[in-house]
Amino acid sequence: MKIAVLGTGGGARCHIAKLAELGHDVIVGTRDPEATLARTGPDMMQNPPYGQWLADHPGIPLATFGDAAAGAELVINGIDGHNAVRALAAIAGDLAGKTLIDYAVPYLYNPDIERPWPTPWGVNPILGVCDSDSLGEQIQRALPDTKVVKAFVTQEQATVVDPRSIGGGDHTMFVAGQDADAKQTVTDLLTSYGWTDILDLGDMVAARGMEMYAHMHGAIGFALGFGTHFGVKVVR
Amino acid sequence: MKIAVLGTGGGARCHIAKLAELGHDVIVGTRDPEATLARTGPDMMQNPPYGQWLADHPGIPLATFGDAAAGAELVINGIDGHNAVRALAAIAGDLAGKTLIDYAVPYLYNPDIERPWPTPWGVNPILGVCDSDSLGEQIQRALPDTKVVKAFVTQEQATVVDPRSIGGGDHTMFVAGQDADAKQTVTDLLTSYGWTDILDLGDMVAARGMEMYAHMHGAIGFALGFGTHFGVKVVR
Repeated sequence: MKIAVLGTGGGARCHIAKLAELGHDVIVGTRDPEATLARTGPDMMQNPPYGQWLADHPGIPLATFGDAAAGAELVINGIDGHNAVRALAAIAGDLAGKTLIDYAVPYLYNPDIERPWPTPWGVNPILGVCDSDSLGEQIQRALPDTKVVKAFVTQEQATVVDPRSIGGGDHTMFVAGQDADAKQTVTDLLTSYGWTDILDLGDMVAARGMEMYAHMHGAIGFALGFGTHFGVKVVR
Repeated sequence: MKIAVLGTGGGARCHIAKLAELGHDVIVGTRDPEATLARTGPDMMQNPPYGQWLADHPGIPLATFGDAAAGAELVINGIDGHNAVRALAAIAGDLAGKTLIDYAVPYLYNPDIERPWPTPWGVNPILGVCDSDSLGEQIQRALPDTKVVKAFVTQEQATVVDPRSIGGGDHTMFVAGQDADAKQTVTDLLTSYGWTDILDLGDMVAARGMEMYAHMHGAIGFALGFGTHFGVKVVR
């Protein structure tokens, strides 16, 4: 399938590599391709520069957000939560009629500091939107002609693309969104990633819980210790 | 152990019955014992009147919040989230030096409507406090001489006291709070309830994640259908 991944961060790289490995026709979108490739320092989350990563994963084209989305059948949003609505709304035409998977957490961004959050160990960064709204709902409102599906957001993307690395893969992935066919497309993709327990949480309002779970995910991660990978299984 | 349960709602009743069954010396606290026993209609959450329930569970004394707490070694807070801080602060002296388990979700209360939330099926009620604070932290700040432990909050109390009823009991319970001994007391109680996987999430700041998980719990519950019991297992 022709799949565009928007963003070049650590999470996006997990999907890019996995999709290429699965034989999909992957294209990557970034705000300014030349600037992305020219960068020599680490990104905001301390990932090595994308150009360096790309050297180890040759042959994956890089384009603007709009050009990447325009040619794709399925689009994965890997743009930081605080930039996502603005960046996606700007290419609404390129996303019209398509399925867009969003996995962003809407962490509050403070432009006055270099990192997006000044959070001590053990305290999760706070969200810019939660409780009575969610980033998933905001994106769906900004893109009324796009079938937005919230997914992937409840754990690290490295294990989203490799669920069997945790407990043999017997844990739960969640999807939410207004369009049943779009959710089926995402469910099929997740199945190809190795997921066996995929729970449809219903309409996009469920993105509130999926995004707010970031605090619980953080707390569990702090408890288990840095670098411990985990998932959650809905036992019923 | 002498244990006080504050509150007479559905969740409190689960703990009262289980603690009595386990042979603890249980006392129940309510704002106005006479009024509680005189009530003939269902409570806010449509539970049958407490007096009716008590007739099926004879011999469990009912006292004011303060009198119940005063004689107990361990106190369980089952007061609604929107009333908890005020009601507990009023009996701070009776709670001093004790371990207090809090399992409340701080759902926003609207005094202009009869029920605490006007929420359609599929949409979780919103929280009065979240993200940068939590009810657990508020209670600990209001009771500096009490060892507050957040626990039980991530699932229905009926299955908190009967974890083996879900998946043979292989799911995860969380505790958080500042005092290690208090958390051990709660962990011992949970073990007596049948829990085998109890994860200490660290300081009370983790109550943010535990309370905000209410949206995820709600979404999963809506997806599985009314009346389906479930828990979550941290797979690692």
